[in-house]
Amino acid sequence: MPKNILKVIDFSTSKKNIVRNKIIMLKTPVIVLNVKTYAEATGDKTIEIAKIMDKVSNETDISMAISVQATDIYKCRETVEIPVFAEHIDPIKPGSHTGWTLPEAVKKAGAVGTLINHSEHRLKLADIDTCISRAKELNLDHIVCTNNIATSKAAAVFSPNFVAVEPPELIGGDISVTTADPGIVSGSVEAVKKIDERVKVLCGAGVKNGKDVAKSIELGADGVLLASGIVKADDKEKVIRDLAAGIK
Amino acid sequence: MPKNILKVIDFSTSKKNIVRNKIIMLKTPVIVLNVKTYAEATGDKTIEIAKIMDKVSNETDISMAISVQATDIYKCRETVEIPVFAEHIDPIKPGSHTGWTLPEAVKKAGAVGTLINHSEHRLKLADIDTCISRAKELNLDHIVCTNNIATSKAAAVFSPNFVAVEPPELIGGDISVTTADPGIVSGSVEAVKKIDERVKVLCGAGVKNGKDVAKSIELGADGVLLASGIVKADDKEKVIRDLAAGIK
Amino acid sequence: MPKNILKVIDFSTSKKNIVRNKIIMLKTPVIVLNVKTYAEATGDKTIEIAKIMDKVSNETDISMAISVQATDIYKCRETVEIPVFAEHIDPIKPGSHTGWTLPEAVKKAGAVGTLINHSEHRLKLADIDTCISRAKELNLDHIVCTNNIATSKAAAVFSPNFVAVEPPELIGGDISVTTADPGIVSGSVEAVKKIDERVKVLCGAGVKNGKDVAKSIELGADGVLLASGIVKADDKEKVIRDLAAGIK
Amino acid sequence: MPKNILKVIDFSTSKKNIVRNKIIMLKTPVIVLNVKTYAEATGDKTIEIAKIMDKVSNETDISMAISVQATDIYKCRETVEIPVFAEHIDPIKPGSHTGWTLPEAVKKAGAVGTLINHSEHRLKLADIDTCISRAKELNLDHIVCTNNIATSKAAAVFSPNFVAVEPPELIGGDISVTTADPGIVSGSVEAVKKIDERVKVLCGAGVKNGKDVAKSIELGADGVLLASGIVKADDKEKVIRDLAAGIK
Repeated sequence: MPKNILKVIDFSTSKKNIVRNKIIMLKTPVIVLNVKTYAEATGDKTIEIAKIMDKVSNETDISMAISVQATDIYKCRETVEIPVFAEHIDPIKPGSHTGWTLPEAVKKAGAVGTLINHSEHRLKLADIDTCISRAKELNLDHIVCTNNIATSKAAAVFSPNFVAVEPPELIGGDISVTTADPGIVSGSVEAVKKIDERVKVLCGAGVKNGKDVAKSIELGADGVLLASGIVKADDKEKVIRDLAAGIK
Repeated sequence: MPKNILKVIDFSTSKKNIVRNKIIMLKTPVIVLNVKTYAEATGDKTIEIAKIMDKVSNETDISMAISVQATDIYKCRETVEIPVFAEHIDPIKPGSHTGWTLPEAVKKAGAVGTLINHSEHRLKLADIDTCISRAKELNLDHIVCTNNIATSKAAAVFSPNFVAVEPPELIGGDISVTTADPGIVSGSVEAVKKIDERVKVLCGAGVKNGKDVAKSIELGADGVLLASGIVKADDKEKVIRDLAAGIK
Repeated sequence: MPKNILKVIDFSTSKKNIVRNKIIMLKTPVIVLNVKTYAEATGDKTIEIAKIMDKVSNETDISMAISVQATDIYKCRETVEIPVFAEHIDPIKPGSHTGWTLPEAVKKAGAVGTLINHSEHRLKLADIDTCISRAKELNLDHIVCTNNIATSKAAAVFSPNFVAVEPPELIGGDISVTTADPGIVSGSVEAVKKIDERVKVLCGAGVKNGKDVAKSIELGADGVLLASGIVKADDKEKVIRDLAAGIK
Repeated sequence: MPKNILKVIDFSTSKKNIVRNKIIMLKTPVIVLNVKTYAEATGDKTIEIAKIMDKVSNETDISMAISVQATDIYKCRETVEIPVFAEHIDPIKPGSHTGWTLPEAVKKAGAVGTLINHSEHRLKLADIDTCISRAKELNLDHIVCTNNIATSKAAAVFSPNFVAVEPPELIGGDISVTTADPGIVSGSVEAVKKIDERVKVLCGAGVKNGKDVAKSIELGADGVLLASGIVKADDKEKVIRDLAAGIK
């Protein structure tokens, strides 16, 4: 068993992950950063951000994870203790798929989980099914992104570990989904739990501070998924500490 | 300038790359391995293959390069001296593109070049244009894959460093393109050179041994692009040495 | 209101459609033919097939519908009384979408419904949501195609009029889904009804004769969706009569 | 041979098409309207626009063609004499391609030609090759849309009947490409003719009046491709007459 998987088990005992029915899964409430392909979060710059999250997570004991570009998984995983996620996997098995993202490859590089169907990388319905199955088969934690209550509920049918609802029109914007459309958060939580109460729900889009995080928990979510709120901030540590303060 | 780029310049002086008008470009004739997403070439297994190519390239002084999954670029680059390529880049600039392959990211991870438009990952015409422009802008060497003489000629219009013609129906098969359809190789060379004589031409599909490599050179190509011929071989070193023997 | 809609209401009163809460919807049990882009079902040849179905439907009073290429909707609709469906709509509103299939366009051409997400034309999850919404908004009947029990259940979340489950590996084959995998039919019916009992379920793939149709009904389906079984038959009328005999 | 093809030959003799080496091709200079999926150009509204173009074309003897949604080809073709084009074809042969646009289908519905690779419906390089081959095989006239000089030149490699260059950022805008970027028009004409002088060149994006048309001819183009300039105009006939006045 590679070293990174042992580390993951360490995370688990250090309460950064939980193992539920032997499934590796982020401990909640959780703050998940998706660095996208921002210039401010490519290569060594991603590692710097991951280090800050790692430090704050250790100091505050708030569960955090970082989702990085495929190229940066290995080095990120070598450097930090917080769980590293892939931003995407393709619905494929090993074989002739030049340039696509093989689930086994992100796992071997050190990712413990992956985003699936992000708003900027949407998948066909049958492919979401395949990606979730592949993630489960490889024991990769997984966050399926959705755009409204109906798609959140549909995604829940596949019993993923997480559904993260993000209204596309609010992504990257200045107003948090928890303020602009709180009903989509509470509605998604309700709809998802009705299908399968084990599925956890995150929310995202415009999340920027601890108040937004606190509101998301209040609305029933198990945490937040955010990107520009941290990546584009001048003082990243200050923002990360503020976000963490929103939990408990 | 990051260390890996300096190393690339070392390759150049060690005759594994050439610098033409300050453009980083593989020294030819060249043998390029595309490992795809084969199980036999994911994670550490890719590194093992790269090490063998590195050893044979050093011993024979035959130019070789390896194109690997995005997740494996960094570690591969840290381990071997032969040029490491990405298998794909997306036609994007830094920004909000979750899970897509940013040219800057593969460069920073250590790739000196990339495949573009592989038969298993075809791109729209305008996006091929954009990918080539982005590769040039970042001084990433680039091999544009095509499927016949006409598309090879069309790709040459963008003056890429390399065009690699591979008839899709022969990819992964037992008969080399140089035997099954030699006219597509010589025809592509002629068509490409008519558009821009600086563009180099590789051929691929079914290439398995030194005889196939020798024939490709004879047909006017500057080398070969292959995958399963090496990846699926029991004795990879033997195959790589045989391929190398096909040059000179 | 255009003439074709009045005709649709005629179908309704002639028991070929039902109006449920003012929603136009095929009367069930139903036999739906999808002609795909077969040479044997392009242009006038489609019309000939539609005429045979129209005749048999009138004589047997068995509900039938035909899904045709966008180019053939208008003429088909002008010629026959059975409901004409589109094979696909794109998730768009009127605007700048050159060459895509506007829901309004198929409606105006005379279609009373459409397939959505056929196995040969799969859509992203969010786009299935949009297509179903657009179909409801325009009062277009709609059949959402799925590939297994889980995707059938996920599709049911959007409360479409119909879900049609078709295992891709059996499509176009010689063995009917009702024989090769009866559990996928009964399982889909159960899963769909659990989500929303108003959603009707069709099954397809390899369906060729009345026995297959009878079995589909026995398994809980509301009818069948088929293609090559009719289109590729030498004696189409004989096959259509046999299929009809499978109902009641 | 269906009636509509005979009519096409009539167009030819009436000088609305030319037959070059037995290839059906629009007579130039030409004004081609692409109605997209605008609400103002769906169903009967398209027919109304086509009738106006037909009338003006007859009165002025200026060559015009209209590219319409697949659903509207048949009726449009039945109603007007000007050549009717499809907005798109898919790179397919007859078979199992539910909901895709079969070249044979648009031909049988009455289209004499088609757009290929419109900016709103871009195709992969290999698929552009296939679409052009299929159009030639069926003797469908064809206009390959491109976005800059380089892609225009690449498209010319396939020797299509027409290349239409349209800078995407100017499409639907208020300033004509002939004013905003005249160099892209003259540059494309030069680049295309260098590859194959038989290929004719249109230009588009923001074209709104006769002055723009005159300028396009002056820049070496064989006509214009436009959409909103006519479709969104209050007085369509006035605009069409003005555009026609730009020729000769």
